[in-house]
Amino acid sequence: MTTIALAQLNLLVGDIAGNARQVIDCAARVKGRADIVVFPELTLTGYPPEDLLLRPACDTRVAAALREIAAASHGISLVVGYPAMRDGVRYNVAGLVRDGVVELEYRKMQLPNYSVFDERRYFEPGAHAVVFEQGGVSFGLTVCEDIWFDLPVQRAAAAGAQVLLNLNASPYHEGKALERERLVADRARRFGVSVVYVNQVGGQDELVFDGSSFVVDDQGRIRHRAPMFETAETLVPFDGALPANAAITPLLVGEEQVYRALVCGTRDYVRKNGFRSVVLGLSGGIDSALTLAIAVDALGADRVEVVSMPSRYTAEISNSDAQAQARTMGVAYHSIPIEPAFNAFLDMLAPTFAGAPPDTTEENIQARCRGIILMAISNKRGHMLLTTGNKSEMSVGYATLYGDMAGGFAPLKDVPKTLVYRLARWRNRNGEVIPARVIERPPSAELRADQKDSDSLPDYDLLDAVLAQYVEQDRSVDDIVGAGFPRNDVERVARLVDRNEYKRRQAPPGVKITRRAYGRDRRYPIVNGF
Amino acid sequence: MTTIALAQLNLLVGDIAGNARQVIDCAARVKGRADIVVFPELTLTGYPPEDLLLRPACDTRVAAALREIAAASHGISLVVGYPAMRDGVRYNVAGLVRDGVVELEYRKMQLPNYSVFDERRYFEPGAHAVVFEQGGVSFGLTVCEDIWFDLPVQRAAAAGAQVLLNLNASPYHEGKALERERLVADRARRFGVSVVYVNQVGGQDELVFDGSSFVVDDQGRIRHRAPMFETAETLVPFDGALPANAAITPLLVGEEQVYRALVCGTRDYVRKNGFRSVVLGLSGGIDSALTLAIAVDALGADRVEVVSMPSRYTAEISNSDAQAQARTMGVAYHSIPIEPAFNAFLDMLAPTFAGAPPDTTEENIQARCRGIILMAISNKRGHMLLTTGNKSEMSVGYATLYGDMAGGFAPLKDVPKTLVYRLARWRNRNGEVIPARVIERPPSAELRADQKDSDSLPDYDLLDAVLAQYVEQDRSVDDIVGAGFPRNDVERVARLVDRNEYKRRQAPPGVKITRRAYGRDRRYPIVNGF
Repeated sequence: MTTIALAQLNLLVGDIAGNARQVIDCAARVKGRADIVVFPELTLTGYPPEDLLLRPACDTRVAAALREIAAASHGISLVVGYPAMRDGVRYNVAGLVRDGVVELEYRKMQLPNYSVFDERRYFEPGAHAVVFEQGGVSFGLTVCEDIWFDLPVQRAAAAGAQVLLNLNASPYHEGKALERERLVADRARRFGVSVVYVNQVGGQDELVFDGSSFVVDDQGRIRHRAPMFETAETLVPFDGALPANAAITPLLVGEEQVYRALVCGTRDYVRKNGFRSVVLGLSGGIDSALTLAIAVDALGADRVEVVSMPSRYTAEISNSDAQAQARTMGVAYHSIPIEPAFNAFLDMLAPTFAGAPPDTTEENIQARCRGIILMAISNKRGHMLLTTGNKSEMSVGYATLYGDMAGGFAPLKDVPKTLVYRLARWRNRNGEVIPARVIERPPSAELRADQKDSDSLPDYDLLDAVLAQYVEQDRSVDDIVGAGFPRNDVERVARLVDRNEYKRRQAPPGVKITRRAYGRDRRYPIVNGF
Repeated sequence: MTTIALAQLNLLVGDIAGNARQVIDCAARVKGRADIVVFPELTLTGYPPEDLLLRPACDTRVAAALREIAAASHGISLVVGYPAMRDGVRYNVAGLVRDGVVELEYRKMQLPNYSVFDERRYFEPGAHAVVFEQGGVSFGLTVCEDIWFDLPVQRAAAAGAQVLLNLNASPYHEGKALERERLVADRARRFGVSVVYVNQVGGQDELVFDGSSFVVDDQGRIRHRAPMFETAETLVPFDGALPANAAITPLLVGEEQVYRALVCGTRDYVRKNGFRSVVLGLSGGIDSALTLAIAVDALGADRVEVVSMPSRYTAEISNSDAQAQARTMGVAYHSIPIEPAFNAFLDMLAPTFAGAPPDTTEENIQARCRGIILMAISNKRGHMLLTTGNKSEMSVGYATLYGDMAGGFAPLKDVPKTLVYRLARWRNRNGEVIPARVIERPPSAELRADQKDSDSLPDYDLLDAVLAQYVEQDRSVDDIVGAGFPRNDVERVARLVDRNEYKRRQAPPGVKITRRAYGRDRRYPIVNGF
């Protein structure tokens, strides 16, 4: 009987000493009850450490951390992830630390270099299976991407592994947890091994890791599943190579899954950057309303401040809905009308602009006056400013740089507008926190009289459908038209997406929840004649 | 006797049809005088095409372009670069197009995946030399990085190549052109081959390609060198495998080299993004003064507009120096004092900030009022806004997000402050375009009374020296202190660099001129506990 602990930790990228402390604390907690503890991929640096890996000081700190972990490994086997320079070559390693020494190191074979991943920038692939014995069972080591391919699993099985310990840093997108389980279950069945899949949890810049660690037996049956978006430490007893049943937390689904991802990513970005609180502009529209709900769920109402900043174009119901929501959610609320600053700029620019008709310039000035107010409050009080824009806007550039795009973090950056609506309705399921009218009104930027989003953009149903095909699936304009969308709209949307890369490049990060987010996941040139 | 044309083109990333047109036009111009034309790496897509490569439409367009190029290849051999999907795998290819067909394709063996390069994200490496005969001489094909390694050269030589045709997209940094020549000359000598090295020229987002194409003989002697930072089309006659002497343009050196890189990068970023003109804020300080000189040299005085935006803290000499420089350079000039907007914001925020002492919040409001004015002029007139900050500021965050950091392009983003001074003095060599007093005054942000940069930052000589070691060479704080710098300063600088990644992430692109620029060249997490 061997008991394996799955340490689903929330690590801090770069904080090697702190992450080592988490390993040692966890080992101390489970010692006597567990025989082996499995930690996430690159436990010591967190994931993704990016170019921190290139600093020689990184290697020194990892080596020091490993010595401390080794000293804590008497009576318990710790399977820990870290980068390791060996003969001048850097590997992504899973090390077995027991009885005071780093006994074995497995080198990750499959290095992902697509989507958000850049592992070939840092690592060389390994080639050999590493298997160790404990309690009469053979355990094989693999790291994350390895298990998406046959070869590393095959080699481990051929080397005698009965149970695979797989260390992961697998970022979230909608539905990913289920994909992983299906794939790993298939590998387990085909190669006749049980698999212990340990994933990290928590936000890191634009990524959120959902945890969802699990254990499958050699028939591919789920024997344990840790919660999503929470740290966890579970002990799974094995009878020989067969896992006993342990807690199986249901997977979150649908809107709840996405919403929890947004809350987790937002909370960690704020907290891990050393902020305690946030401010955001509450317009009476649905994006800022949902952002407020996420902020309150992430940080608590006492750490959220909202500002309503009406102008001559703001409908009265926008102000009252904003105030009503602030009251419902119990957050600090001010109203600061932007007219004095807006007028000052119009006057200051009047000689320069003499004779020029009003255009988006004047709309942008309003958005930027709001940006200044919000950043001033952010600066003065030490709040992080949350940006409220959604993916549909970010895609087509329907947002003002340095205006409503200003901020440290954009929770909805990867959330299409149609999903914003679904999330808002879902959040209201147990009582209205977002006023119904905010959800039902036609959306408007309120930057000129009687403006509606639909004056400038196709219907959001159509827009989001086209964007999913153009941005997430790389389909061509002709293909999308062939799928039944009007050519005019498709061409316009594609052109807007291409032209607005410069805006996205200056946008704050947000939580990736789709298969392809803007940012490191979609790397487009700004100068682009495609 | 075989004559080779080196086509040092300025390509537009993504514009596959337009780039093919450049190839065809060039072939038509040199036909009858040249036997072979060598184009830059990935001629058809431009470099780097980034995730455009993942679009299936990219392959379709490349195939169509190749058919047109093939049709234009009667009587002349065209060696063209392009991405090619072969059996489901994408390669970075140099194709020999002659007599109406794509006759041979060489697949790049060495795929750089460090610094600004991500080629493993897109391509698989080739393994085989490709050699063709023309006029009794054997020509081998290689692509860029290949020639930095022995293996591809060795294989080509072993396959009989007497002359290597090397297609490049080698981005500039200071001194790079000379490095390339030395390295290629060494390979040429060691493997007994002549080398035709063709590089692209021009700016692409944060990169600038310097051209500097050249030919070396099998003794490593330079036989031809094309100019830096200009398109060129040179014919080099070969006697058998030996290049005859052709024009050898001297390499630019020192400040001139860097300055020309900045001008070229700025011109292309503006032009290739469809802008004709720029606006910038002229403060009377040296950064904006140098940026103005670059803008005028890049675009012409009639396409540059400057705005002076004094506040209560602006010295009178700042205004008069700004105006004097604008007059000298012959650019449109306005002065728009920011006091009305600044006061409006202070009043609007007074109730919210009641009792809070002034701090950087009020300084940032001033910078952001200027950002609004500049962006309004940019929006109204269709000018691109140039940002004037330098690398030293960008490193330590001595700049205001959405304020002086606002803009589409930052020419000095990778230029340390000490180099800004050297470049300004160099630009004044034939007559003062930057007022001497602007160069000689102690630098100040003028955001509060009697402010000096030296109140907040170490001396720029010290700062830049520490930054070079910490940012460009990844040295640790201890190492830098060991090299003789005060621990206090080094720790402070390192902390500021680490903490200000969030600002840099929202900064516009600028021209890379050092070995390590911010942006794709240095990929750091924002959440970072290192």
